[in-house]
Amino acid sequence: MYKLYAVWTHPNDVDAFEQHYTSVHAPLAAAIPGLQRLALTRTSDVLGEGNSPFHRIAELWFEDEAAMQAAADSPELQAAAEDAGEMQERFGVTLHSPAGLCVDQPLGPYTP
Amino acid sequence: MYKLYAVWTHPNDVDAFEQHYTSVHAPLAAAIPGLQRLALTRTSDVLGEGNSPFHRIAELWFEDEAAMQAAADSPELQAAAEDAGEMQERFGVTLHSPAGLCVDQPLGPYTP
Repeated sequence: MYKLYAVWTHPNDVDAFEQHYTSVHAPLAAAIPGLQRLALTRTSDVLGEGNSPFHRIAELWFEDEAAMQAAADSPELQAAAEDAGEMQERFGVTLHSPAGLCVDQPLGPYTP
Repeated sequence: MYKLYAVWTHPNDVDAFEQHYTSVHAPLAAAIPGLQRLALTRTSDVLGEGNSPFHRIAELWFEDEAAMQAAADSPELQAAAEDAGEMQERFGVTLHSPAGLCVDQPLGPYTP
């Protein structure tokens, strides 16, 4: 599985951001061709002390890197990216978009 | 599904970081009680221009927030957190640990 992450910093107006994100931005992203799953997390919490460093993290799941590259040229992804650009200006946020191959670590007791 | 993200900035020595991460840190994290899945992504790529803003993103999947809070008190998570603390000093990285409820966005054409 290949994943593109959308990591958002904190907006200046949380309610307005959330309204736009849920009603416009997430539906735009959900239309991207080749997308196998779109997982959205409102990262309100944090492990340990302090405040969460990010407002939201989204995962766009693709079959492989080629599928993401194909999607990158689609009008649907272009529309979502354009909307994301406007959101960054409007809400004073930064969007980070790292991507890579996602692998599962087998679970179990620690054996050095 | 409730997710704890481990977002790592770029290390000063990628090979040494990767060696430690795969042989020590990921196995320590995989032993955390209540963990349902541990998904690891080496975020080498980025959507668009420029370099990836983060070296790695890991997802720790839990049933719900209570399961993560229970895990937070476990010796296994404490061991992984202690190792992460040492890694931040040794490799000059910052680890962000946001968490929250993860929901799926239904896929499909955009309908405003």
